Amino acid sequence: MDTPLDRLAEQFRRLPGIGIKTARKLAYYMVQQPPEKIEEFIAAIRDAKQKMCFCSICFNLSSQDPCPICSDDRRDHGVICVVETPQDVSAIERSGDYHGLYHVLQGALSPLDGIGVEDLRIKELLQRLQNTEVQEIILATDPDVEGEATALYLARLLKATGIRVTRIARGLPMGGDIEYADEATLAGAVANRQEM
Amino acid sequence: MDTPLDRLAEQFRRLPGIGIKTARKLAYYMVQQPPEKIEEFIAAIRDAKQKMCFCSICFNLSSQDPCPICSDDRRDHGVICVVETPQDVSAIERSGDYHGLYHVLQGALSPLDGIGVEDLRIKELLQRLQNTEVQEIILATDPDVEGEATALYLARLLKATGIRVTRIARGLPMGGDIEYADEATLAGAVANRQEM
Repeated sequence: MDTPLDRLAEQFRRLPGIGIKTARKLAYYMVQQPPEKIEEFIAAIRDAKQKMCFCSICFNLSSQDPCPICSDDRRDHGVICVVETPQDVSAIERSGDYHGLYHVLQGALSPLDGIGVEDLRIKELLQRLQNTEVQEIILATDPDVEGEATALYLARLLKATGIRVTRIARGLPMGGDIEYADEATLAGAVANRQEM
Repeated sequence: MDTPLDRLAEQFRRLPGIGIKTARKLAYYMVQQPPEKIEEFIAAIRDAKQKMCFCSICFNLSSQDPCPICSDDRRDHGVICVVETPQDVSAIERSGDYHGLYHVLQGALSPLDGIGVEDLRIKELLQRLQNTEVQEIILATDPDVEGEATALYLARLLKATGIRVTRIARGLPMGGDIEYADEATLAGAVANRQEM
């Protein structure tokens, strides 16, 4: 039985991290909302889609171009942190410790998924590095296969520029447990050990 | 910083079972979808809201009135299974073992939340029982405080009709573990024990 409710559940199921049970729950919840709540939800989607754009400098999602980070003079314009997604920018901003700029690649190298160098904002990163005061590039791609490959590729590519290139540390997360840490994390944590 | 993206995340966060992290992820995902995917999503919401209505007999959500269950002559019109929500109907239908009718109360008695007898479809249930062939009413409200209170209330109310009233069994779920079962479930499972 394919009802409009099933079709709505199917739409919810396509969202990341939403399984079939949650999708059904959301569909039932949605149709039982008063019409004004539903219109509010739809307006928020339309508004976000319309007003959010990619910053033409760092390719972060923003409602302004250039984005508030790129146009903030109090930030350190000598450091660029290279990340995969706008969500990564938000996460690092929430940590509150970083005051440089960003560059959002909009993905990571993944030959299996057909994502190559030309699909990422790498050309634009190189353009940013011409005639600028950039002294350090921090590679903050994810510590997974695609992210590591992307970091390695960029490190080699950027060597020619003479700019210092660093990679965020791999190590044990706060609240982590050595006993249950995986080998790669533990190996990284030992290799990246620091003086106390 | 309150951007249209934050406002969309806030809308997602109001959905049941969606925390702030998932809400942010969904908002980012949504604005990065192509416009036609977004319109498809919005159309599914509008379509479901417009076409789904409550069956005037059993108060289940349906795109027809009466719903396909109430209008199905092959089903046993002598049994009515009383549930709290349309989702409960779906769950029991998926189990595939029940072939009677339903009555959706659209909630459970909860004085603390201000939900009383007149807020549920109890009056409509009593009306259904006049001049019908109903021989059994199965009370399938949730096995929690509100659901139990509702079942107890209905059992007393329906006694006058002379119709057989039963309550779904409490017991151990399939794949459950006696060692980790809570006391109420275990007590119910022992009390409801059956001949083998």
